[in-house]
Amino acid sequence: MNDPISIVLFSGTDDKLHAAATIVAGAAALDRPVNVLVQFWALDAFRTDRIDQDHGLAFEAVRPGRTPPAKAGALPWAETFRQAKQLGEVRIRACSASMEYLDIDPSQLDPMVDDVCGIASFLLDADTGPVVFI
Amino acid sequence: MNDPISIVLFSGTDDKLHAAATIVAGAAALDRPVNVLVQFWALDAFRTDRIDQDHGLAFEAVRPGRTPPAKAGALPWAETFRQAKQLGEVRIRACSASMEYLDIDPSQLDPMVDDVCGIASFLLDADTGPVVFI
Amino acid sequence: MNDPISIVLFSGTDDKLHAAATIVAGAAALDRPVNVLVQFWALDAFRTDRIDQDHGLAFEAVRPGRTPPAKAGALPWAETFRQAKQLGEVRIRACSASMEYLDIDPSQLDPMVDDVCGIASFLLDADTGPVVFI
Repeated sequence: MNDPISIVLFSGTDDKLHAAATIVAGAAALDRPVNVLVQFWALDAFRTDRIDQDHGLAFEAVRPGRTPPAKAGALPWAETFRQAKQLGEVRIRACSASMEYLDIDPSQLDPMVDDVCGIASFLLDADTGPVVFI
Repeated sequence: MNDPISIVLFSGTDDKLHAAATIVAGAAALDRPVNVLVQFWALDAFRTDRIDQDHGLAFEAVRPGRTPPAKAGALPWAETFRQAKQLGEVRIRACSASMEYLDIDPSQLDPMVDDVCGIASFLLDADTGPVVFI
Repeated sequence: MNDPISIVLFSGTDDKLHAAATIVAGAAALDRPVNVLVQFWALDAFRTDRIDQDHGLAFEAVRPGRTPPAKAGALPWAETFRQAKQLGEVRIRACSASMEYLDIDPSQLDPMVDDVCGIASFLLDADTGPVVFI
């Protein structure tokens, strides 16, 4: 058993990145291989010069009249991803089309990103197991 | 067969909660077990004192120049979740990390929430079947 | 093997529609059947009179102080969906509940939409393989 979990990581706010990181770490702790394809606004958040910045919260968290919890700025998603990689078989890949779209060079990405690949290559490793879009 | 469907319910707007509820009810009607992990803004919406409030719509629904349909305020997602639980094997669990993050006590949640659990415990029940992030 | 990929396409911004289209095209290229249920704001974007319009970008792309890439307006998602249909076994279905909610008639939808169906009928075809909510 132990089907891999494939995650298409699209969203770039701290809360969704944190939710993704905890799923990845939880799956790694259960000995499931995890493949993450980082694209669009998530990829932007994985830039070395931006990864430690505040990336905001999802739309519904910041509506008028809504005060996000004080802990909002303290979601350590990047560190959780790094720990997940030490814990199990976690591969973090940058989406080639998004690299071009955002005009990002591989050297600009955090070292936890393993390589760059296309969607078809990513889906080849997802022939079994769930595909999660976040 | 009849693999379970595992849903990580993150979003807290009425349209996404409604979309989630109809997937849960549809799966229950087809005799598939459903496990829902309610976290972040969805968990906030499951608070007893907020569940019947207006939780707004997704970002793209409320852009300038866009008028959401009049039926927008009338999406009965909470009731659909309750009916799904009567229809089949549906478990609704509150994410322990989100409980802490949002400073919510179990007694503040709608009774349809069965218990509190962590992501690893949730993923243990998702060793087969799809994992859906909403 | 070759489990189908089932996609619940909810979001109506160009970046998410593009992300969905490339997953569909990639899966079709790998000979996997793909079933797409188009609902809510995605369904609105599939209206014949709106499909070629600018549908904006996700929330985090347009925050103050953030300039989306110049290529933002040029994501050819509709064409990518059409090519995916020629490439493989791709079925695009409109969600019946969303049709009613948005007051849309089948004749108002782009011809690439094959038919209208309910969530239970859609989930029947998803008894194996991943379910992806976008």
